[in-house]
Amino acid sequence: MPDVKKYVYSFEEGNKDMKQILGGKGANLAEMSTLGINVPPGFTITTEVCDLYYKNEKQITEEIKKEILEHLDKLQKKMEKTLGDANDPLLVSVRSGAASSMPGMMDTILNLGLNDKSVEGLSNKSGNARFAWDSYRRLIQMFGDVVLEVEHAEFEHILENAKDTKGAKYDTDLTTEDLQEIVKKYKEKIKEIKGIEFPQDPVEQLFLSINAVFNSWNNYRAIRYREINGIKGLIGTAVNIQSMVFGNLGEDSGTGVCFTRNPSTGEAKFYGEYLMNAQGEDVVAGIRTPMPVSELEKQNPEIYKELVDICDKVEKHYKDMQDMEFTIQNNKLYILQARSGKRTATAGVRIAVEMVNEGLITKEEAILRVEPNQLNQLLHKQLNPVALVNAEEIAHGLPASPGAAVGEVVFTASEAFNKNQEGLNVILVRTETSPEDIDGMHSAKGILTARGGMTSHAAVVARGMGTCCVAGCSDILIDEKAKILTIKSKNITIKEGDFISLDGSTGKVYLGKVGTQDPELSGNFGTLMDWADEFRKISIRTNADTPIDAATAIKFGAQGIGLCRTEHMFFEGDRIKAVREMILADNVEARKTALAKLLPYQKEDFIGLFHEMDSYSTTIRFLDPPLHEFLPKEEKNIIELAQEMNVSVETLREKIEDLHEVNPMLGHRGCRLAITFPEIYDMQTVAIIEAAIAVADNCPVCGKKHDVKPEIMIPLIATTKEFSILKDRIVKIVDAKLKQSGLEIKYKIGTMIEVPRAALVADKIVESGAEFFSFGTNDLTQMGAGLSRDDAGKFLKEYVAQGIYENDPFEVLDQEGIGELIRIAIEKGRSVKSDLKIGICGEHGGEPNAVEFCHRNGFDYVSCSPFRVPIARLAAAQAAVKELLKK
Amino acid sequence: MPDVKKYVYSFEEGNKDMKQILGGKGANLAEMSTLGINVPPGFTITTEVCDLYYKNEKQITEEIKKEILEHLDKLQKKMEKTLGDANDPLLVSVRSGAASSMPGMMDTILNLGLNDKSVEGLSNKSGNARFAWDSYRRLIQMFGDVVLEVEHAEFEHILENAKDTKGAKYDTDLTTEDLQEIVKKYKEKIKEIKGIEFPQDPVEQLFLSINAVFNSWNNYRAIRYREINGIKGLIGTAVNIQSMVFGNLGEDSGTGVCFTRNPSTGEAKFYGEYLMNAQGEDVVAGIRTPMPVSELEKQNPEIYKELVDICDKVEKHYKDMQDMEFTIQNNKLYILQARSGKRTATAGVRIAVEMVNEGLITKEEAILRVEPNQLNQLLHKQLNPVALVNAEEIAHGLPASPGAAVGEVVFTASEAFNKNQEGLNVILVRTETSPEDIDGMHSAKGILTARGGMTSHAAVVARGMGTCCVAGCSDILIDEKAKILTIKSKNITIKEGDFISLDGSTGKVYLGKVGTQDPELSGNFGTLMDWADEFRKISIRTNADTPIDAATAIKFGAQGIGLCRTEHMFFEGDRIKAVREMILADNVEARKTALAKLLPYQKEDFIGLFHEMDSYSTTIRFLDPPLHEFLPKEEKNIIELAQEMNVSVETLREKIEDLHEVNPMLGHRGCRLAITFPEIYDMQTVAIIEAAIAVADNCPVCGKKHDVKPEIMIPLIATTKEFSILKDRIVKIVDAKLKQSGLEIKYKIGTMIEVPRAALVADKIVESGAEFFSFGTNDLTQMGAGLSRDDAGKFLKEYVAQGIYENDPFEVLDQEGIGELIRIAIEKGRSVKSDLKIGICGEHGGEPNAVEFCHRNGFDYVSCSPFRVPIARLAAAQAAVKELLKK
Repeated sequence: MPDVKKYVYSFEEGNKDMKQILGGKGANLAEMSTLGINVPPGFTITTEVCDLYYKNEKQITEEIKKEILEHLDKLQKKMEKTLGDANDPLLVSVRSGAASSMPGMMDTILNLGLNDKSVEGLSNKSGNARFAWDSYRRLIQMFGDVVLEVEHAEFEHILENAKDTKGAKYDTDLTTEDLQEIVKKYKEKIKEIKGIEFPQDPVEQLFLSINAVFNSWNNYRAIRYREINGIKGLIGTAVNIQSMVFGNLGEDSGTGVCFTRNPSTGEAKFYGEYLMNAQGEDVVAGIRTPMPVSELEKQNPEIYKELVDICDKVEKHYKDMQDMEFTIQNNKLYILQARSGKRTATAGVRIAVEMVNEGLITKEEAILRVEPNQLNQLLHKQLNPVALVNAEEIAHGLPASPGAAVGEVVFTASEAFNKNQEGLNVILVRTETSPEDIDGMHSAKGILTARGGMTSHAAVVARGMGTCCVAGCSDILIDEKAKILTIKSKNITIKEGDFISLDGSTGKVYLGKVGTQDPELSGNFGTLMDWADEFRKISIRTNADTPIDAATAIKFGAQGIGLCRTEHMFFEGDRIKAVREMILADNVEARKTALAKLLPYQKEDFIGLFHEMDSYSTTIRFLDPPLHEFLPKEEKNIIELAQEMNVSVETLREKIEDLHEVNPMLGHRGCRLAITFPEIYDMQTVAIIEAAIAVADNCPVCGKKHDVKPEIMIPLIATTKEFSILKDRIVKIVDAKLKQSGLEIKYKIGTMIEVPRAALVADKIVESGAEFFSFGTNDLTQMGAGLSRDDAGKFLKEYVAQGIYENDPFEVLDQEGIGELIRIAIEKGRSVKSDLKIGICGEHGGEPNAVEFCHRNGFDYVSCSPFRVPIARLAAAQAAVKELLKK
Repeated sequence: MPDVKKYVYSFEEGNKDMKQILGGKGANLAEMSTLGINVPPGFTITTEVCDLYYKNEKQITEEIKKEILEHLDKLQKKMEKTLGDANDPLLVSVRSGAASSMPGMMDTILNLGLNDKSVEGLSNKSGNARFAWDSYRRLIQMFGDVVLEVEHAEFEHILENAKDTKGAKYDTDLTTEDLQEIVKKYKEKIKEIKGIEFPQDPVEQLFLSINAVFNSWNNYRAIRYREINGIKGLIGTAVNIQSMVFGNLGEDSGTGVCFTRNPSTGEAKFYGEYLMNAQGEDVVAGIRTPMPVSELEKQNPEIYKELVDICDKVEKHYKDMQDMEFTIQNNKLYILQARSGKRTATAGVRIAVEMVNEGLITKEEAILRVEPNQLNQLLHKQLNPVALVNAEEIAHGLPASPGAAVGEVVFTASEAFNKNQEGLNVILVRTETSPEDIDGMHSAKGILTARGGMTSHAAVVARGMGTCCVAGCSDILIDEKAKILTIKSKNITIKEGDFISLDGSTGKVYLGKVGTQDPELSGNFGTLMDWADEFRKISIRTNADTPIDAATAIKFGAQGIGLCRTEHMFFEGDRIKAVREMILADNVEARKTALAKLLPYQKEDFIGLFHEMDSYSTTIRFLDPPLHEFLPKEEKNIIELAQEMNVSVETLREKIEDLHEVNPMLGHRGCRLAITFPEIYDMQTVAIIEAAIAVADNCPVCGKKHDVKPEIMIPLIATTKEFSILKDRIVKIVDAKLKQSGLEIKYKIGTMIEVPRAALVADKIVESGAEFFSFGTNDLTQMGAGLSRDDAGKFLKEYVAQGIYENDPFEVLDQEGIGELIRIAIEKGRSVKSDLKIGICGEHGGEPNAVEFCHRNGFDYVSCSPFRVPIARLAAAQAAVKELLKK
């Protein structure tokens, strides 16, 4: 009948490529059925019927009804059971299933087909009256709620009353008689509220349920879900009618869950749990302990073999480790579900690599198989999962920097520093951190803050250092003076010196010492990374301010430094004193004198970095933050500093007041400092070029000659003139020093693109001599979208919830808006200089979506914190593979 | 000799169109000479010679030298005098003159030709030995400094010594003998320092001077001047050699300045001053009082008639009022200079209008003739120029809002309000103002702040209200507690109640009461405005928050409201209390209750505005500032408010702390408030539509029916989703109210474009329903260029000085950078909706360059503060005329 449109498909008639009309679930059930796997039989009403339903005033046409009934008839024949039968009734489930997964958003009816007669049939057949009546109770409750629109609470009320009367704690404490009484009351309630009887005709039940599923396609939460997830172009949901099977029909029945490989370790060994004479919920309820699936081999070797064969077949078919649910009903094995199994990072990497070795998948597929962000788990120390079972979770913040940390609580940076010197492990707990805390942050094993988001100072610095950090943990209240932290909701008080444990990957905080385990960069990990490097097109650099960070990054595969923040070097030890002298200086000469004290430190810093980078490029950003960040904020510290600097408190306070800014983000910082105080960048230029000359000639660290490649980066450029004025000064200094040395060192001068205006005049900035652009996407997002990183947390959650931004734009690059600025800048910049070097050094540099964006838009490199380098390598490879597959 | 290049032109050989080679001054002198006006004869060495001079290792070729000498010879013959002659010597001036005016940047030599012999000749011929020797002294000093590069101070030192020895106070107290002695010492000093004699050969003097002028083309200040003023493409300076004439050669000589019309009033009456037997500097020295030029008619009717005829001729020739300098030497009239005369705004308008009536210029020319910003003078009360002569200037700030104000000093907004209620005139003096001060600002005649720039709160609000304001007056120190202000540098203390006077057009502050004069919107002003309206293509709207502002703007010709800032309505009287209740509310219901109290106020506000606008559009912007702006900052006020609101001080402080933002500019404000608290815009929507319905039906103010046109503007939109979410809510409320009323009111919903991201997704914002864009260029500049209005003052001066920005980008729109964002937004927006309405409502809306930018880029309207409406009308007309002239 090629000219008659088909609206209903038996599972055997479909396959996995028919998602658009069968929905995801329907297509999957069809695929397994056609593979010959024993799936409980059923059929799918297509999404087109849903579309027609809405077009036809919420009616299913008679023709389609007829087609449905024909399929029902076939199903009854196949199952040798009939809906509503008083002896051995067929029960079916009615489930939604759109082409895109919308978990839990639409409605489902289970146990359909039960009525006052067939409940007895089920009771007889199963030999379990309680089970039959409980199933009936559930049907009426679900049907009453979803189809008849009687408030769910009405049924719960009756149920609770019954339990109270009986003194029952769990539903399972209710007897058959209790359940019969409840069923009666349920039916009365429906009559009372809706004026109708609960329909006894199973076919009526069926069509009403199908309508209800169609209606749920357009309920509020489903519409919102599609909006938020950008699901477009679907015509409706399919409806799956599937016969129900039961694992609790006696000792020849059972139910279980299995994995084709071990989801924790990735070992290629069948793995799972099961229970005989049980339903899935029995496993969940924890009343009985499930058995390892290996026991099934002893208990029922035939079924076991059948299961193993099916698993093998399904894994080979889908070419991925499968998570499967099965039920044994009267010694017959049914597969209820098969899907790609969730796995740990370790398992993910191992499975991907081994499947390539087994010839099951290609390297390209292996690369696409591992979620880059998951690698984080592999690179950091972890809390031991076993130890975690009994750990007391006391608070939950943002997972700001992954890893685990266990240590004594301290409340100040100096205390962290001191205790660390004594060899103790400490957790630094602060309301929020500031640049003054840098020493203490370096000394701590972990950092916990009460305020600030994923891109707060604490989070950014901690990620940069690879230190575990939980940020914005609003549950905790810190009293720095009293040196205690309290968690009101739990009535817990923690003193300085008490132990806590942090999980930076989940944001959870635990009381006391929780055991940890070290990262294991296994051979499989290395293999996957090597494959990634074969495919990726863009370089991966790192953001590193110290030789230690740089060395870590190199270990993780970084190919240069994309961002060295020189200001971080200004906070350490004695340096801050010279910085403050510089700030308090009244004139150029005094400023130069103070800066001269910083020069040897800066030079030493750069020598260390250049040595580590050897022949890789090192991009050094000149001083960026506003000067007030180097001065204390609190009265006590101001008085201390005034004494130390030998100035009056008033003078110091005036200076601080003078430097105060209403919007420091848009203030006197970056290259603006050098326009007004050119001496600062002059000193940094001298330090860079003297260091470069030293390591090129005779490295003070190793005595070798390095092919050093310094790249000087000017921050916060907004206009061409800023760039040309500063570039001229730099070139003069560098060239004079090089001439003096007699060496030839290839250096580049470029700029951050982080002010929107710079993106708009990017062509002119290149004309005035910029040799590279590095996108500072943090600031570009702040200015471009008008969002302050420090403040936006207050409303960004709501923004993401309402789908205004799909993600926090500080975590995931806003490709539509900020991405457009980047595209404009690249187009303009390369219109002048086609080989203009382009990179990214914002926090987004290690975020997989941003890495893909950079790949697509012709970036030369991305730069990210050392611990994100492997993630970026994999993400870059995935971007390249996706492009290959498109071709 | 058409094949021989000509490098030197007699004045008679050139004309005004030869600026490129003769320079501005040379071309002007030539033009007058060829007109037959008696200019002291001379010749011009072209700019090409300067170019060749630099190309030829700073040498003038022999051929050109010869050409110069030939012209010198002709000049001597014409003047019947010879350079260096011992009896009646010719004296010449040697002056620079490039194609673009560079006043004072290059060098000049006067009295050239004097030497030991000719000084006697000049003495004999003039009968004034002192004059001759003083001229010689001046030549040596000027020549020594400019040509021979002997430090100017060396000569001053000798002169001061001579005066000290003689007990002379002024140079004029020195006798001939004194001057002879000084000349001797000058020559000895030159010999001592440079080892050469002062050249006695006048031709040597001449060529050395010409070289010196060429050299000054590339001195530091000239190069910087060209950079800063964007003067490009010039090849060098011309050199003008002109015979000198003297007005002090006896009673048949004299000198004067005249205007072809009165530069103060514009009256078409010859006007000027002169002195017989005098030089220009005698007038400046103030030793003798000059006579009105009408006296010359009596004293020397022939010369007078000649002068009047010349003036008439020159004015007709240049078609503009001329400012001319003349000298009578031995009864012969010479015109030394004629240029367009500076004039007051009143005179400018009158002259332009009358010249059209006289048939001298066209309306188009008249429109171009008046500088739009000058109109400011006409629209405000002014300090009386006569009274100003004796006024004591005590401080100098920024001319933040034009006009004049005289009143008693008060230091708090509440005091301003109280004293104003008593009928007193007050000047509100604050370190800086905040929104809480709004009542006081309304009550004051003038506002003086110690901090803040041209776009600070005080400045913006004052301009909006048309109140005189001097801002950022850093000379003053305010002690609010003691109620005094001090001006340290002048040792002046002013108490509350003391009188001061402000000039908001100059930024000057005067002690005591200075007389004022009222604005006079003369008939000529009206005529010019009418002509402007004939030509301009874009509408002019106003930024107005109150019916009074709206009425003022209508009087000045506004065609609608482009921006009504509703938050200003929230600060007044009782309203702030309800606003604060709303902010402190813990839940939606409490918030709604507080907002309900504001509704009647808002509705009343809008009724007043709609009534004033009649059938003009009224664009109302929803609440924009962050909520913390409505809460007090100082401890004292917090305690007060807590009592008033009946909450604990701690609760209030927590709320304030909670609302605190690190970068409020990028914070929780604008439409972001409505995403999290939709009740706020709901209330405003109800107020707008209820008000519109009221005035459309039966205006509560006048009882008429107005064709009301509300335009609802959503601020701070950055994403399409923000817009569509809020638009949907607004439309629902408005349409329900309209349906209820049975009226049809055409309303529009649009958005500010003030976040860079919005400009980049402008097409999508239009797709989601925006009916108009209004560019908020203040915020667009802040975010686009990463500059905080509140902070950037600290370095923007330096930025403008270094030419990084040509102007303060908050005063003059940055067309290159921010303009590019605007162009992108317009292009994208109109690609979706070709008739998308486009306006501007930032502070730039009334700035003439921005108005021209808007005209060129297809804006429908600009909106500015009421007092800038006439300026914008004229600027818009000028833009249209310029475009016409190009075609």
